[in-house]
Amino acid sequence: MSKRKSTSTAETRKSSAQALLKDLGQSVYSDLDAGRFPSLTFASRSVRNIVYDKKLQQFILGAATVKRSSGNIKHIRPFTQLLWLAFFAKKLVDEKKTSTLRDVFYSAQAFGVEFVDQAESDELITDLEVVMQMAREGMHIFPEERSAIFGDLTIEYTVPGYEGKRADMSGNPDGVMIGPALTTAEFVDTDAEIVIAIEKGGLFTRFVEEQVHKKYKAILINTAGQPPRSTRFLLRRLNQELGLPVGILCDADPWGAHIAMVCKGGSANSAHLRELTTPDAVWLGVWASDIVKYKLPSDKLTDVDIKRLYELKADPRYTDKMWHDELDTFLRIKKKSEQEAFARYGLSYIVDKYLPEKLQLMKSF
Amino acid sequence: MSKRKSTSTAETRKSSAQALLKDLGQSVYSDLDAGRFPSLTFASRSVRNIVYDKKLQQFILGAATVKRSSGNIKHIRPFTQLLWLAFFAKKLVDEKKTSTLRDVFYSAQAFGVEFVDQAESDELITDLEVVMQMAREGMHIFPEERSAIFGDLTIEYTVPGYEGKRADMSGNPDGVMIGPALTTAEFVDTDAEIVIAIEKGGLFTRFVEEQVHKKYKAILINTAGQPPRSTRFLLRRLNQELGLPVGILCDADPWGAHIAMVCKGGSANSAHLRELTTPDAVWLGVWASDIVKYKLPSDKLTDVDIKRLYELKADPRYTDKMWHDELDTFLRIKKKSEQEAFARYGLSYIVDKYLPEKLQLMKSF
Repeated sequence: MSKRKSTSTAETRKSSAQALLKDLGQSVYSDLDAGRFPSLTFASRSVRNIVYDKKLQQFILGAATVKRSSGNIKHIRPFTQLLWLAFFAKKLVDEKKTSTLRDVFYSAQAFGVEFVDQAESDELITDLEVVMQMAREGMHIFPEERSAIFGDLTIEYTVPGYEGKRADMSGNPDGVMIGPALTTAEFVDTDAEIVIAIEKGGLFTRFVEEQVHKKYKAILINTAGQPPRSTRFLLRRLNQELGLPVGILCDADPWGAHIAMVCKGGSANSAHLRELTTPDAVWLGVWASDIVKYKLPSDKLTDVDIKRLYELKADPRYTDKMWHDELDTFLRIKKKSEQEAFARYGLSYIVDKYLPEKLQLMKSF
Repeated sequence: MSKRKSTSTAETRKSSAQALLKDLGQSVYSDLDAGRFPSLTFASRSVRNIVYDKKLQQFILGAATVKRSSGNIKHIRPFTQLLWLAFFAKKLVDEKKTSTLRDVFYSAQAFGVEFVDQAESDELITDLEVVMQMAREGMHIFPEERSAIFGDLTIEYTVPGYEGKRADMSGNPDGVMIGPALTTAEFVDTDAEIVIAIEKGGLFTRFVEEQVHKKYKAILINTAGQPPRSTRFLLRRLNQELGLPVGILCDADPWGAHIAMVCKGGSANSAHLRELTTPDAVWLGVWASDIVKYKLPSDKLTDVDIKRLYELKADPRYTDKMWHDELDTFLRIKKKSEQEAFARYGLSYIVDKYLPEKLQLMKSF
C-alpha cells in the first residue's frame, strides 16, 4: 500500500503569515522613520486587470497597480482600515483564534475603526489578500459555509486545544465538517488513491453507504453546491501535498459544469490568489453527452440555462476541447439532468456502473 | 459525574417502521381478499385542519380525514403512488439504505410509477408520513441539508458497514455532520449537562475555540440557519432520551426568534408529526431586550421584518408572555442585531459574559 506523506506543515504556514504581516507593519514604520507618508502599492483588482493565465489555468491579476497613501486625504480612510485589518489578522494568528468576515466587521467597532457595512470590510479584506498575496484563511479569517469529508485519511489538528490530536476521516459516515480546524490540519496518513468531490449531500451519503471509499480507495468530499473556499483549499492540498488525483461529479447542467470548473480553475474573484485552484482536477461528469449515453431522465433547459451556456462558451477557462464540446452538446440536446437521475436504474447503479467507467477514463487524462 | 443512558434504540425504531409498513400492506391485501376496493383513510392536511395544541406546544392535525380509494377513478393515481412509496420505503428499511426526496422521485421511474415532478412525490411522501404517523426519516428518506454537532457525547452507529462503530463527538473541532448515520445512532455516553443550539457556523466555531463544551459541559449544535429536520429530530432525542436541557441561540430578529420557535414547537408543515419538536427547549437569545441591555450594534428593522413580527404576534405558538414581550420590544425599538454583534466587545465576550448570564437564567425556567 502506498502511504503518502504530506509536503507542507501548519507551522510553516503560520510563520509565513506572521512574517508577511510583520513585513507590512515594518514598511509602515520605515516610511514614518524616514519622514515619508506611509503608503501601500498593490495589484489592481479592476475587471480590466483580470486576465486568464493559460499555464496556471486560472485568472490572475495583470500589471496594473493601485497606490493607497496616507498622504492623500481621500486615501486615509481605506489606508487606515487596511492597516487595522492587518493588525487584527496578526492578532488572530498570534492568538490562534479564527474569525468570520462578519466577526471582523463587528470587531472593528471595538477599536473605533469604521466600516459602513460588511460589504466594505469584505472589500478591504480582499485588498489585504492582494497586499499579502495570501488567502485570508491563512490569516485566520474563514468563510461561514461548510462542506464535508469522508474517507481513509488521518489528520492531526493544529488549532488550540486540539494540537496533536489525530482524527480518522472515516470515523463518521455523515462526514466531518470542513472548517478552520480541518483546513489547517496536517495530513498524517492515507491509503486513498483518489479524491472524489461531489456536488450534493445526497449522493455523498450514497457513496458512503455503497462503500466507495473502500471499493475505489477514495476520499469523498461533499462540496455542498458551489464549493466554499475552505473546501477548494482542502482539495488543492490533497492534490498537491499528497499527490492524489481529484475527480469532480456534478449535475449535468451549466451550473454543475461551472462548479467543476471553479474547483479546477478558481473564480475571477480570487484572481489574486493561487491557493484555491486545483488545475489537475478532472470533471468526471455528469456530462451532457452522458444524458444521451445513459438515457437519463432529464428536464428541458430554461432560457436562463441557455444564456448561462453561452456565457461559459465565451469564458477563457472553457477553451479546452472536451469542455467546449460538452457545452455544445447541452445546447444541441437542450436537456439537463441531475446526479440523482441515475436512481432511475436503481440506487446503486451510479456506483456500480457509472463511476467505474468514469474512473477508468480518468486514467487516460 | 452524571453518566446519562439513552432510553431508546435504533433497533426498536427500525422494527417499528417495518411493522407499520407491513400493516399498511396487510390492510390492502385484506381488502382485496374480502373483495373490497383497497382504500386508505388518514388525517387531512388542509390548512383548516391544522390546529395548535397548547399541551403539546405544537401544531397538530384536527379530526377531519381524507379517503383515497382504489374504487374511485380519480383516486387511483395518488393511491398507487402512495402504495409504491410505502413499498419503496419498506425496501429502504429492509436493505438498510437511505434515500433523499430527490432519489425517491427518480427511483419511481425505475418501477414505471409516474410523478409529474418532485413536488408531487414530496407531497405524497408527506401523505405517507400522515398514514404511518411517522417521520419519513424513520422510513430512511432524509433531507439534503446538514448541520453539525460537537461535544462530549459518544455514539454508536447503526448504519450498514458501521454497525457498532463508536465515535466521540468531540473528536473533530469543525463538528461532525448531522446526517442519516448520526440521526440513527445510539447514544452511548455523555458527561454533558446541556445542549446549546446555535444558528450560525461562525459562532459555533467560536464556541468550540473558546471551549464552551468543557467550560459549560455543553453539546454544541450548529443549526446552520433554519434547522433541517434531522437536526430537530436529534435535538429532541438529546432532550428526551438523555434528559438534557436544550438552549437555543439565534440572531436578534424575527427570523432568529422563529428558528428558536421551530426548534421548540415545530412547523405547521409537520403538524402531523411529534418527532420534530422539543417543547422544553429554551430560547436563550439574542433577545430584542438584549440589544438594549448590551448596547449591541444594530440595524434598523426593514418593512419585511416588521410585517414578519406582526405575523409572529398572531401566531398561536407565540402566546407565551416572554415571547410576546420580546416581539413587542422589537417593534418598539425598531432594531435588530446579529449574534456576531457581541464581537464589538471582543471575540470572547459572548462566551465569557453573555452566555453565563443566559445559562443562569435558564435554570429559572
